[in-house]
Amino acid sequence: MNEKKEELSGLVSSIMESYEKHEIICNIDSTSRLNRTTIVELIDMIRDILFPGYFEMRNIKSSSVEYHVGELLECVQYRLKKQVIRALQHRIDAETGETQDIENEAEEIVLKFLQKIPMLRDVLATDAQAGYDGDPAAYNTDEIIVSYPGFYAITVYRVAHELHVLGVPLIPRIMTEHAHNRTGIDIHPGATIGKYFFIDHGTGVVIGETTEIGDYVKIYQGVTLGALSTRGGQNLRNKKRHPTLEDNVTVYSGASILGGETRIGEGAVIGSNAFITSSVPSQTRVSIKNPELLFKGRVKMAELGQEGFWKNEKE
Amino acid sequence: MNEKKEELSGLVSSIMESYEKHEIICNIDSTSRLNRTTIVELIDMIRDILFPGYFEMRNIKSSSVEYHVGELLECVQYRLKKQVIRALQHRIDAETGETQDIENEAEEIVLKFLQKIPMLRDVLATDAQAGYDGDPAAYNTDEIIVSYPGFYAITVYRVAHELHVLGVPLIPRIMTEHAHNRTGIDIHPGATIGKYFFIDHGTGVVIGETTEIGDYVKIYQGVTLGALSTRGGQNLRNKKRHPTLEDNVTVYSGASILGGETRIGEGAVIGSNAFITSSVPSQTRVSIKNPELLFKGRVKMAELGQEGFWKNEKE
Amino acid sequence: MNEKKEELSGLVSSIMESYEKHEIICNIDSTSRLNRTTIVELIDMIRDILFPGYFEMRNIKSSSVEYHVGELLECVQYRLKKQVIRALQHRIDAETGETQDIENEAEEIVLKFLQKIPMLRDVLATDAQAGYDGDPAAYNTDEIIVSYPGFYAITVYRVAHELHVLGVPLIPRIMTEHAHNRTGIDIHPGATIGKYFFIDHGTGVVIGETTEIGDYVKIYQGVTLGALSTRGGQNLRNKKRHPTLEDNVTVYSGASILGGETRIGEGAVIGSNAFITSSVPSQTRVSIKNPELLFKGRVKMAELGQEGFWKNEKE
Repeated sequence: MNEKKEELSGLVSSIMESYEKHEIICNIDSTSRLNRTTIVELIDMIRDILFPGYFEMRNIKSSSVEYHVGELLECVQYRLKKQVIRALQHRIDAETGETQDIENEAEEIVLKFLQKIPMLRDVLATDAQAGYDGDPAAYNTDEIIVSYPGFYAITVYRVAHELHVLGVPLIPRIMTEHAHNRTGIDIHPGATIGKYFFIDHGTGVVIGETTEIGDYVKIYQGVTLGALSTRGGQNLRNKKRHPTLEDNVTVYSGASILGGETRIGEGAVIGSNAFITSSVPSQTRVSIKNPELLFKGRVKMAELGQEGFWKNEKE
Repeated sequence: MNEKKEELSGLVSSIMESYEKHEIICNIDSTSRLNRTTIVELIDMIRDILFPGYFEMRNIKSSSVEYHVGELLECVQYRLKKQVIRALQHRIDAETGETQDIENEAEEIVLKFLQKIPMLRDVLATDAQAGYDGDPAAYNTDEIIVSYPGFYAITVYRVAHELHVLGVPLIPRIMTEHAHNRTGIDIHPGATIGKYFFIDHGTGVVIGETTEIGDYVKIYQGVTLGALSTRGGQNLRNKKRHPTLEDNVTVYSGASILGGETRIGEGAVIGSNAFITSSVPSQTRVSIKNPELLFKGRVKMAELGQEGFWKNEKE
Repeated sequence: MNEKKEELSGLVSSIMESYEKHEIICNIDSTSRLNRTTIVELIDMIRDILFPGYFEMRNIKSSSVEYHVGELLECVQYRLKKQVIRALQHRIDAETGETQDIENEAEEIVLKFLQKIPMLRDVLATDAQAGYDGDPAAYNTDEIIVSYPGFYAITVYRVAHELHVLGVPLIPRIMTEHAHNRTGIDIHPGATIGKYFFIDHGTGVVIGETTEIGDYVKIYQGVTLGALSTRGGQNLRNKKRHPTLEDNVTVYSGASILGGETRIGEGAVIGSNAFITSSVPSQTRVSIKNPELLFKGRVKMAELGQEGFWKNEKE
């Protein structure tokens, strides 16, 4: 028994030493600790306000919806403010060491954010419509709201983006990375995205921090709107590193569009797997000359209208 | 204090206005509200019936398994029926406005579904075997059942597909999108998939609504079985837009096979990253002529048996 | 009422028959049943020990952190041991039928694992630093620890790898597949990975069982470090099937590096979408000659500096 106790005490000591050794992965005695679980709960509550009657455990009736929303708003206001205070504290801790009137600042930020909810609904209604119009497999807009991962990722992005614009550090990214976990769609809260935005299937999509996207844009799974090189690391912070997509652009699956000076003109269509590192004029369709296919088999190639009979084989 | 109250009341009013403005993203007073949380719980209960002894919190003993299953079945029957009623109600609300004897219809659907459980187990046993036979990293079939995302996605798809075939709207898609969230594997419940199906790794796989897949098919991460173009939007609904894969087809990572008339013949092997938009005869291996590699560096290229010394550089 | 009862009893019987028919997807009366939920909880507790003050619901203070960690350690020790016993039992059931002194073996394994926690923190501190240095969008290391999916996947991999090295079956894979579910990043616990490892974005990354990775390696979303062919199935078990990446290698998005004899030399840079099946010397940049782009549109191609005016169009 005593042996066990010593064993455990030895383990604890060695871990304590490790806490002192590596401060960058240690958050003890912090006053600016964000609570990830709370932030995820906040996303759910904000979504309940944005889309009433879809996700609650009980039916929402018109006779009581006002009280329901009032209660949710009060709760979001209180809990979000607490997290924003910590996030701002974090910024101050890290950058200047100064303290300011963080409590008032946080209150103002949260109020401004909540005032944007009707505007968020204006835009999200266009996103739901874009999903329905763009996908023959969509049964109705309810299906999109309840089950489409692209719609979920866009919703969380739009919420996070408003907080990002209001100068809240860390929380927006925690929000979008939660959506990234759930959907495989990675949208940085710093990106700017117009209305009627639709992401189909979505797994593997990456939209970088300084990307700008116009209205009526549609992108598919595996699309990267990324940087040309990030070798500069922290020196590149705040530089425009990601592309601009004008209105009505479509980008098919697996395409990469890279670079801060790359601009895809209005109405352009980028084909599957294209790798684009310079601008594309408006109304242009860009596709790749698909890699030559090599066939090998027992059947005559003539059936396929393909020449040759290749031996190479790469699986 | 009063100021705060007015602030909140102003927020509530503006949100109420927004609810009236955008009905397509509002579900107040709905009698057909599906409960996503319940549907996810139903998936778990159905999985407990399908694979006894793997996921429950306690051991399942042969002496009591009958009662255990009886209890689960009764619970699934009751709760699934409730959701199916709402889903059917939804369909009627949206399409005709008529009401029918939905309760009986739902009861019949749920019974038919539950009667398919042994058949589902027949097929899922072949899927587990296919996973073990096809993956040298698999330790045993238990590992596949407990941890493989591909097996989870296939299980949920097979359950959802049966409900889809029985004419249940919305619920099947909510199920498969839940699996999509968890695994990055997006299988539409409308697809038809034969036995001994194996998806390795799986992230990024998309299998569209009208895809048909034979027996002994194996696909890898990032494979798209998709539509050639969805620009037709809702006009394309119910048209065959996705490919057919005959028995024994293998599709390696990142390949795209597109189009409703595209047919991959029996035993064909499609190589990594191939982009296929027309049919492939049986027993054929198709691979892409891989994009030429450009090298630039301090070392002699002779080491690699590659010619040239290129300056281009794309990262 | 009686009709209902008979109906249910008929369903139960047919399911009981199915349980007898397919033993490979049945785990009744098992003494070696792993509890997936417990294993996921263990990951969370181990993460709380590794990164104090980031994920707990309350603040962690230096005055009490020792007790906090002691408590967590005791809990992990107890619960992990229980699961390890079952996992070892599983191995014995499956392979030889022999029983050994599993309890002692499990105790020893868990102790050895817990003793590695300071070493795990040494390495994870380098991973957090690599994330910060490598990503201009990173605000600070806290953001990386709290929200980056790549960091989460690496953490779970490093924990699982230690258990794998200690000879624990099944549990390591359940752990990494949980991370795979959450992040879209699939790292087999058998892989060997050096320090300062960074995965950016990460969705779609696959790192196979026998991969070896040096220090200061950086990889992006959609990268596969895989096998050339797994057609050999279980015959290939324990063979080196996956590549080796030496120190300072960078692999950009969508690239595939395949084969057990493929070795990427120190400092090499592999460009986006490259498909590599043979070794690359050190200090070499490899990129693909990107597929030719085809343009079609109303605008003059001169604007782009591109020749021609293609009619092909592939979406």
